[in-house]
Amino acid sequence: MDKILELNLEDFSVVVEPGVTHKALNTHLRDSGLWFPVDPGADASLCGMVATGASGTNAVRYGTMRENVLNLEVVLPGGELLHTAGLGRHFRKSAAGYNLTGLFVGSEGTLGLITAATLRLHPAPEATVVATCAFPSVQAAVDSTVHILQAAVPVARIEFLDDVTMDACNKHSQLNCSVAPTLFLEFHGSEQVLAEQLQRAEEITQDNGAFHFSSAKEAEERSRLWAARHSAWYAVLALRPGYKGYSTDVCVPISRLPEILVQTKEDLKAQGLTGAILGHVGDGNFHCLLLVDPEDPEELHRVMAFSELLGRRALALHGTCTGEHGIGLGKRQLLQEEVGAVGMETMRRLKAMLDPRGLMNPGKVL
Amino acid sequence: MDKILELNLEDFSVVVEPGVTHKALNTHLRDSGLWFPVDPGADASLCGMVATGASGTNAVRYGTMRENVLNLEVVLPGGELLHTAGLGRHFRKSAAGYNLTGLFVGSEGTLGLITAATLRLHPAPEATVVATCAFPSVQAAVDSTVHILQAAVPVARIEFLDDVTMDACNKHSQLNCSVAPTLFLEFHGSEQVLAEQLQRAEEITQDNGAFHFSSAKEAEERSRLWAARHSAWYAVLALRPGYKGYSTDVCVPISRLPEILVQTKEDLKAQGLTGAILGHVGDGNFHCLLLVDPEDPEELHRVMAFSELLGRRALALHGTCTGEHGIGLGKRQLLQEEVGAVGMETMRRLKAMLDPRGLMNPGKVL
Repeated sequence: MDKILELNLEDFSVVVEPGVTHKALNTHLRDSGLWFPVDPGADASLCGMVATGASGTNAVRYGTMRENVLNLEVVLPGGELLHTAGLGRHFRKSAAGYNLTGLFVGSEGTLGLITAATLRLHPAPEATVVATCAFPSVQAAVDSTVHILQAAVPVARIEFLDDVTMDACNKHSQLNCSVAPTLFLEFHGSEQVLAEQLQRAEEITQDNGAFHFSSAKEAEERSRLWAARHSAWYAVLALRPGYKGYSTDVCVPISRLPEILVQTKEDLKAQGLTGAILGHVGDGNFHCLLLVDPEDPEELHRVMAFSELLGRRALALHGTCTGEHGIGLGKRQLLQEEVGAVGMETMRRLKAMLDPRGLMNPGKVL
Repeated sequence: MDKILELNLEDFSVVVEPGVTHKALNTHLRDSGLWFPVDPGADASLCGMVATGASGTNAVRYGTMRENVLNLEVVLPGGELLHTAGLGRHFRKSAAGYNLTGLFVGSEGTLGLITAATLRLHPAPEATVVATCAFPSVQAAVDSTVHILQAAVPVARIEFLDDVTMDACNKHSQLNCSVAPTLFLEFHGSEQVLAEQLQRAEEITQDNGAFHFSSAKEAEERSRLWAARHSAWYAVLALRPGYKGYSTDVCVPISRLPEILVQTKEDLKAQGLTGAILGHVGDGNFHCLLLVDPEDPEELHRVMAFSELLGRRALALHGTCTGEHGIGLGKRQLLQEEVGAVGMETMRRLKAMLDPRGLMNPGKVL
């Protein structure tokens, strides 16, 4: 564990080097009373999560990597070693100069190489309860989400799974859920607080027409539900043996989610594609998992066209072409449409300033 | 109210133009069920709060401006109009390109002129309760703070006031509090949740030796306490009629607070200065308000030397020379010591890239 350094329980901070995953860190933190909540689903390297600006299921309550990185050690393209908040510093806030830490979070390796990250830790929840409920429509599920957030219920996770995903999860993970738009919710707090949060969520979802609201407190049943959620990718893949998966994501203002989800379902149908929708609905972020016949290049072409259309639909609704997957190579055109000419020019000047020879992850993002 | 634009209650967002203060925005939001929690104490322009990266008493729970700005309209020094997250966009998260929004928050007007800000709103608390308690020592007050945070009590405000500040507040605001290190706490939530939070906070503070724990639910009594806190500056000024006030701030990892507070008290004594200490102790951030005889240039000189020493003490404890006041002119040397040569060079290159002619707030920060 020599790669987990400077764990400071009183200051809620830790330094990790490349290779340490969020699961390894949380295993190390077990019994400390603290944890690192950002969880992209699959086990991932924390420094990689910094570079991609990862988020995942807990972001609605605890924020994404952008809100949970206190300092970075970065090797700049010219070879200099930069400590974005100053060497060894791990304060919770500062008004000293430009926010260099924020510049590197989510830069996808194009501005420098992250060699250590100081992360902000959170108190581990005293108790946890999970709830699931099915809805007659996407609109009802999203309305419930907005009402839960407006009621200041501090939900830790609020995940949307569409009917296709639920069908796949039922089969793959031996669930027995309704094949309908569904929310998976998780609450963190004391026993008493949880009971109240659960009751309010149940009232709100039932006001919006939810059926089959059920909750689980026992660790085993909770794990089973989240394992099903985290295995959704494999569950959907199993719907069409031999097919390959293609995944994309967008993020829109929450109020526009029903509209884009309905449009997306229609697009899938019109294109004759098999796609499952699931997402971090409390942040307005969702994924579409598409199945492609590897023998059918024409289908792959349609999948790519669908993905581009989805990105443009998000942009038209004041959203972003990617909530957490990043730009990479595939979304460079969409990024231009998203931030406009002045935004692109500013990003290009940033890249040219820090990496004039174009050494860092060349061709990506811009 | 033509300067408050695009209020979107379902998406928890609003656009404000320069001149709108956080009080004006919250008055506008009254009865909407939402509010903007960042509150620097004095009434301030929201776009100015973006430029300075303001925070204040609620930051421990709701974050600073850095966590609550979704998009900015900025006139760049060359005259181009930049929308940092793309024109009209107000999503909660994104992984699309570099974080330009974060670059301008806290840049103190040196990179461009902010002409509109899209802010993230939060659900207004259903109920609020305030508590005060006095401690036998600074250490006991800080230990209580750490334990409250570790216990995941979602405290909305946790403010430290030293004995000098309490004495001044007693006199100026007709309080009847102990003249001792004191915490002012505030909790937000449902009635039931508040009762539990209050009980846990009382237990924790009493375990740490607190005396005179008292709480107030009624709006009038709560207002009286926060008015006293927000008037602390004037209360301290009133200790020495005719003197002028000089204010500085630093921020350190929370565990180092007792050490630096004790050192600071000793420094004040050694320099023969009258200074009061108060701060946002949940973030490790505190202010020192110093009184200077305007007829005594030598005293002003000692105040400046004290302020520089305080900044260096914070830096030596892995902290920052300013948690929320900013660099301006006075802390440029300390910024260099804080971020080091590579950090400064990176900031200078950023400034030169965006403002090659040095037009924007010249001479500040760098």
